[in-house]
Amino acid sequence: MATTRKTARRSSALKKTPAGRSPGRRALSKTKTGKMVYFFGPGATEGNASQKTLLGGKGANLADMTSIGLPVPPGFTITTDTCAAYYDSGRRFPKGLSDQILANVKKLEKATGKKFGATHDPLLVSVRSGAAVSMPGMMDTVLNLGLNDVSVEAMAKASGERFAFDAYRRLINMFGDVVMDVHHDAFEAAFAKLKKRLKVTEDTDVDAAGLRELCDLYKAVYKKHVGKPFPQDPIKQLEASVEAVFKSWNGDKAVSYRRIEGITGLNGTAVNVQAMVFGNTGDESGTGVAFTRDPSTGKNTFYGEFLINAQGEDVVAGIRTPEPVARMAKWNNKAYKELLKVRTKLEKHYRDVQDIEFTIERGKLYMLQTRNGKRTGAAAVKFAADMVRERLITKKEAVMRVSPDHVTQLLLPSFPPAAKKGATAMAIGLPASPGAAVGAPAFTAEEAVERAKAGEQVVLVRKETSPEDVDGMHMAAGILTSTGGMTSHAAVVARGWGKCCVAGAGDVHIDAAKRRFTVGGRTFGPKDVISIDGNTGEVFPVALKAEEPKGITGDFKKVLSWADGYRRLGVRTNADTPADAKRARDFGAEGIGLTRTEHMFFEGDRIMSMRKMILAENEADRRKALKSLLPHQRKDFTGIFTAMKGLPVTVRLLDPPLHEFLPHDPKAAARVAKEMKISPAKLKARIDALHEMNPMLGHRGCRLSITYPEILEMQVQAIVEAAIACAKKKVKARPEIMIPLVGTKAELEMLRARVEEVIAATRKAKKFTGKLDILIGTMIEIPRAALTADEVAEVADFFSFGTNDLTQMAFGYSRDDIGSFLPDYIAKGVLPVDPFASLDATGVGQLVEMACRKGRATRKGLKLGICGEHGGDPSSIDFCHEVGLDYVSCSPFRVPVARLAAAQAVLAG
Amino acid sequence: MATTRKTARRSSALKKTPAGRSPGRRALSKTKTGKMVYFFGPGATEGNASQKTLLGGKGANLADMTSIGLPVPPGFTITTDTCAAYYDSGRRFPKGLSDQILANVKKLEKATGKKFGATHDPLLVSVRSGAAVSMPGMMDTVLNLGLNDVSVEAMAKASGERFAFDAYRRLINMFGDVVMDVHHDAFEAAFAKLKKRLKVTEDTDVDAAGLRELCDLYKAVYKKHVGKPFPQDPIKQLEASVEAVFKSWNGDKAVSYRRIEGITGLNGTAVNVQAMVFGNTGDESGTGVAFTRDPSTGKNTFYGEFLINAQGEDVVAGIRTPEPVARMAKWNNKAYKELLKVRTKLEKHYRDVQDIEFTIERGKLYMLQTRNGKRTGAAAVKFAADMVRERLITKKEAVMRVSPDHVTQLLLPSFPPAAKKGATAMAIGLPASPGAAVGAPAFTAEEAVERAKAGEQVVLVRKETSPEDVDGMHMAAGILTSTGGMTSHAAVVARGWGKCCVAGAGDVHIDAAKRRFTVGGRTFGPKDVISIDGNTGEVFPVALKAEEPKGITGDFKKVLSWADGYRRLGVRTNADTPADAKRARDFGAEGIGLTRTEHMFFEGDRIMSMRKMILAENEADRRKALKSLLPHQRKDFTGIFTAMKGLPVTVRLLDPPLHEFLPHDPKAAARVAKEMKISPAKLKARIDALHEMNPMLGHRGCRLSITYPEILEMQVQAIVEAAIACAKKKVKARPEIMIPLVGTKAELEMLRARVEEVIAATRKAKKFTGKLDILIGTMIEIPRAALTADEVAEVADFFSFGTNDLTQMAFGYSRDDIGSFLPDYIAKGVLPVDPFASLDATGVGQLVEMACRKGRATRKGLKLGICGEHGGDPSSIDFCHEVGLDYVSCSPFRVPVARLAAAQAVLAG
Repeated sequence: MATTRKTARRSSALKKTPAGRSPGRRALSKTKTGKMVYFFGPGATEGNASQKTLLGGKGANLADMTSIGLPVPPGFTITTDTCAAYYDSGRRFPKGLSDQILANVKKLEKATGKKFGATHDPLLVSVRSGAAVSMPGMMDTVLNLGLNDVSVEAMAKASGERFAFDAYRRLINMFGDVVMDVHHDAFEAAFAKLKKRLKVTEDTDVDAAGLRELCDLYKAVYKKHVGKPFPQDPIKQLEASVEAVFKSWNGDKAVSYRRIEGITGLNGTAVNVQAMVFGNTGDESGTGVAFTRDPSTGKNTFYGEFLINAQGEDVVAGIRTPEPVARMAKWNNKAYKELLKVRTKLEKHYRDVQDIEFTIERGKLYMLQTRNGKRTGAAAVKFAADMVRERLITKKEAVMRVSPDHVTQLLLPSFPPAAKKGATAMAIGLPASPGAAVGAPAFTAEEAVERAKAGEQVVLVRKETSPEDVDGMHMAAGILTSTGGMTSHAAVVARGWGKCCVAGAGDVHIDAAKRRFTVGGRTFGPKDVISIDGNTGEVFPVALKAEEPKGITGDFKKVLSWADGYRRLGVRTNADTPADAKRARDFGAEGIGLTRTEHMFFEGDRIMSMRKMILAENEADRRKALKSLLPHQRKDFTGIFTAMKGLPVTVRLLDPPLHEFLPHDPKAAARVAKEMKISPAKLKARIDALHEMNPMLGHRGCRLSITYPEILEMQVQAIVEAAIACAKKKVKARPEIMIPLVGTKAELEMLRARVEEVIAATRKAKKFTGKLDILIGTMIEIPRAALTADEVAEVADFFSFGTNDLTQMAFGYSRDDIGSFLPDYIAKGVLPVDPFASLDATGVGQLVEMACRKGRATRKGLKLGICGEHGGDPSSIDFCHEVGLDYVSCSPFRVPVARLAAAQAVLAG
Repeated sequence: MATTRKTARRSSALKKTPAGRSPGRRALSKTKTGKMVYFFGPGATEGNASQKTLLGGKGANLADMTSIGLPVPPGFTITTDTCAAYYDSGRRFPKGLSDQILANVKKLEKATGKKFGATHDPLLVSVRSGAAVSMPGMMDTVLNLGLNDVSVEAMAKASGERFAFDAYRRLINMFGDVVMDVHHDAFEAAFAKLKKRLKVTEDTDVDAAGLRELCDLYKAVYKKHVGKPFPQDPIKQLEASVEAVFKSWNGDKAVSYRRIEGITGLNGTAVNVQAMVFGNTGDESGTGVAFTRDPSTGKNTFYGEFLINAQGEDVVAGIRTPEPVARMAKWNNKAYKELLKVRTKLEKHYRDVQDIEFTIERGKLYMLQTRNGKRTGAAAVKFAADMVRERLITKKEAVMRVSPDHVTQLLLPSFPPAAKKGATAMAIGLPASPGAAVGAPAFTAEEAVERAKAGEQVVLVRKETSPEDVDGMHMAAGILTSTGGMTSHAAVVARGWGKCCVAGAGDVHIDAAKRRFTVGGRTFGPKDVISIDGNTGEVFPVALKAEEPKGITGDFKKVLSWADGYRRLGVRTNADTPADAKRARDFGAEGIGLTRTEHMFFEGDRIMSMRKMILAENEADRRKALKSLLPHQRKDFTGIFTAMKGLPVTVRLLDPPLHEFLPHDPKAAARVAKEMKISPAKLKARIDALHEMNPMLGHRGCRLSITYPEILEMQVQAIVEAAIACAKKKVKARPEIMIPLVGTKAELEMLRARVEEVIAATRKAKKFTGKLDILIGTMIEIPRAALTADEVAEVADFFSFGTNDLTQMAFGYSRDDIGSFLPDYIAKGVLPVDPFASLDATGVGQLVEMACRKGRATRKGLKLGICGEHGGDPSSIDFCHEVGLDYVSCSPFRVPVARLAAAQAVLAG
């Protein structure tokens, strides 16, 4: 999710440049004869942190660390412009580059006191790529450059033969593979053959002599495949490696990555050449990784581990068990004290918790990398709050330090990385509703209810869910569906409850009749416990251990209250029951932006009245059935208004097509026919008559109110009676009656008149003369309503953007069916992100912006909000802020996310 | 259709004023004390034909006729501004109005030599409403004003007692009913009682004495209900009638009519007061109606009928048989000669054929009305061509004189009014495809084929049709469906063939299993012949006699060729077969704007290959099935390119969701499973997997090509091979490859690249080095594509607007399901017209306009066309012209309509 968000933000930031053009691409031609190489080293650093575009992210960082006096191995960076010049010159080194590289190698030799290819203590370097944006698919690293048949012997003398020849064979392999395209397998085969002859199995069992022999074998492999011997001139090695980095910029993987991510406007990649240091030269050496504070709890303690006589990869690989970093004091107190100083310096400089890598070569500390440390939600808020207390950062910065994912982690159960260690996801669906759930599969809603009531933890596993399934969904620990998208029924309902849901996991093949599902040939029945991760969409075939949420307390509460101080957008919630309303208030909701009245029709025996209404053959019978629904609706509204204590409550009138309320399978239909005392044939005829080819584009929303105005009348009467009942109890109710699916001014005008009549009639019937504060407005969810918003606004007190439907119709994507091609669209880069998860600013956004502008042109100060699922998505909230909405509305568990994101939108702007 | 079109045009003309405001409404306050009454009479006419806004349509016409010296009974018109002033003064006569009326009555008395309420030959007047736009629901007429107890006796002396008291009782009744709101029944009851007492049954059997008594009875009824006696003062009668006209302007019916029709910007109604003349004062008097030329054949002969001693309504009522107007010469040669002079004068003045009403009162000719005459298609083209030959009108005017309905009548069978006389439609559906069909119902496509082959005329009666039904549809005389809209499968296919279709006749309840349908309790089986009218949507329970079309010959051909000289828009056709293409060329198509390749997959055994392709489980099997389709597609394209001889042919790649090609009912599925040698369960599983909740928003169009590029590859290969085959035969092929359902630039970019690769590969494989003229473009049918047209145009050679889908998504109306609420929407005035029949300029039009503007901003000279069903609708064509499209494309039978409408768009502009 974090990547998604970043991408969406970046896309929108970059979109101002003409599409598909790279503005820098032409400008650079002028620079190709200028300075192409920037040195970094004590007292001689030429670059700085602000030159990310020119030096790449890594290059700028190395320059920066060196500048503040950290013991960084010296080196130099070849600029991104040089990469572009390389291509402009027809894939040749631009004039002067070789000279500049040579000059910098001299500087480097001076700084390190070592010499390339020397017969004593030779200089070795690494070469790494590094663009302004981190980019998988480019060449990563060539290590140990500078070794040749001469210097390897010098090194063997200094650090041991095994060490030296191991380094040399790695260089030949890496250089052959990465720079010269020799297939890795060729080297592997030679090594295997040698080990067989030496009768050993592990690489590490090969002794110094063996490795010396291996180097000869590798050189032979190299010569055979390349046609020339392995280059002995370190400068030649270096130049070839630099060119390989340049080439990797236009490699298939890197190009496709940029296309998919919509990354444009970059010149090329920089190349970083840096002196090698070794933590594995003996017991005086070592290596480690650390966080400047505890990234798990957020405690202000130095947190990390180190290994003596080891390289960085040994710490990560986990073959040897590292020691806590504090133990370093015993081993080399001087280096440890220096590291502690570095820790303080880094936090002061970067003003954030750092994740560092260091090496001690023969007792001397070297810093290899520093970056902002990843952290848990708990740590994020503690870091932020602590650093404000320490006056290291401002409150504004603190608000920017907590991500929406952190908030979700603090509110809902999650699987920490440790819990997932060793477990492999067997399927990946859409992360439809965050959280974590563990349980045995239940295949129908009834089964879920039954087993959950018996005390079992179950995960409801369905192809898709429908309103009939809500009881079972509610009782289940989590929900897994094999079809449907981010705004499918399962997703929307689960998000409302803060219940974990993975939707549209197409690899899960469900056979509900046989109570089982299969994934990749493996079958799961009602006793096979699974785990689903609503933050990632992963489905695991085992029980994982979830971490329970912390809730809004302490530092978290503090950071959120700071956020509230900065945001301009109001934050409301989507809630259909007094309980949801109450919870959302506790989460900080400032009103209800969407109450879906139809959800109220499914509860208990109301569904029977609803069905009677639908099956009625004339208005009189319809009114009779509606009359029995009225007290229920009134009670619901009274409860919600009371829970919201004077905050506004947007009530959407009946929206879904009527067939949604009728039973879907023959068995259920037979039961319903019996209960309703009508013939199954008659029920079937009515269900058939209501069947639609494309229900999303059918007879629903305000279209129902136009053909059956009595439904609207009952609902409005219930709202007004509830408001009056509240007023009599001194509770101020502020209903905002929302008429859905309006596409023309005429619809809203006609229905508004009807609503006003019912309000007046109800007041009169109740003899209520007090003040009633009721607005009448509409959802903007039909493209035509946005296009004609100037007309629609003439009869609307407010607009609320229903961006689910607006996205559906603007793209022509059914949110129920998008699963059949969305994964392919994302994979092929046709879409950067699921447009139902994150609002498409480029297309759908135009309709939103247009409706805001046109609506307010006709009606100044028109109240504008959003109640689609995008209302809880941070990048969409950013868009809502930009476009000038008054509020966003989202499911209760997203309210804290929205509060934070709304503040971040202001602070980033 | 004609009304529809007029309305749509008017709405678009008026939309430039701020919505909902009436600009004249405020301006008029200044005029209320000025001239309020305009006299018309020989030598004293104050108004003229151009003052329709001020005098209303009728008032301006009366003034005009008088001005050119026609013997019009004199009178005066009270202006529309005065009506507005009446409302501005709180529903009171504005100051000075009474005086002006009085002054004009004096003038009228002078002009007629008669006096109001006189004891000898008294002046009688009629009062009629008349706004600038004809408007049902307003007060129609009060006749015989001026009669009272005194003047009736004078009239009795002059014209007979029965005549005078009959006129008086009619006045009391009409004045009481229309002006004073006395219920008509009250008068009827009194009359019935009298007739019973006199022992007669017919009104006409009551003698003079009876009518004299009836007047007394009526006056009593009047007094009882009104509370005052019937007014004896003619001026009081007149003023009350004028006020009643004013009031009727804001009557419920008139207000709702204006709302529904979207009529705004009118001040009010005018009131016309005119001296009465009588054709029933004796054998010297008479009345008649006539056309200045024959409105049926178009021949230049005076055409009409008259009745001696009769009133206008007697001619219409048909109780007495009128005589041909030429016979008048024998009866009153002087009057007849005068009438012939009037005929000539009228045609010279109005430069069009007139439909006139006249009366001869005691030998003197009076002209009561003239208006442009209604005419058949045949007459319309003959009138137009003749009048150009007579130098009465210009060719431009001639082109404007022929309506689209006329063209349809000339191209397709129709039921002339005479054929429908006495027949009552039992159901009315949508006029989905024009024409007329008579036949016995067939309930399945197979049945239709069988019976039609046996020589029977059948009408295919289905709930809806699907591609599987095309053979049966083709063999049937016409198609009737009970669901579906103007762009449903049945409608689109039928229009393509010029076959009559009535769609969505909801009152027709079909029981296909029992081979019968019922309408309003009446049952029809396979032997009950019915008639369907594709121009009106009517369904008749009997066989009507259709009139055969004339074809494009003679004057029709001439007028169309004139039209071609004026139009800017190109006209292409939608055609899927060489035969359709050929026919459309004969109709004047200048290219093909849409070839739906999927239609080619249903023919013969191709459907089996198509199904194999769909059921394939991997790409290899899919390619195998596609390979067997390739030769068919190539042959189709070769045929079409050859038929179009160098004209451009837009080929749309596969568009519908794949499940459309699979069998729909279990029986058919079983057959297919057997033929394909797969298990029914497997077939069912695949059909289920392809099932979509909202297929219109599902996996179709370019989305298919993205997931299964091999389909696109086969189609493009077939196109290119066909083009090469043509080139080798010296036939220039100009394919335009159209990629459907594009919503993002990325889709088109990716697929365009794929198309270009296939073109290059095919050229290479065929070793073809000649020139190939192939464009690659897209349909704009997804709102997002219109919104981002600037981006999309970067990779498109052309745009073709698919306004069916664009309308579907902009409104959120499924064209398959709209039947459930569209009739209600039209009836309640929510929509002025079916947006699938006539393009919604206000909403959908914005997307079209935006896409044109943005597309051409990126790519100058981008080729723009429309291939949605709107391409054949005149008001939509007008819009297409305005917005700057290059061409419209429509079904073959609409091509001549489009040629004409495109010229009219230029000439009207």
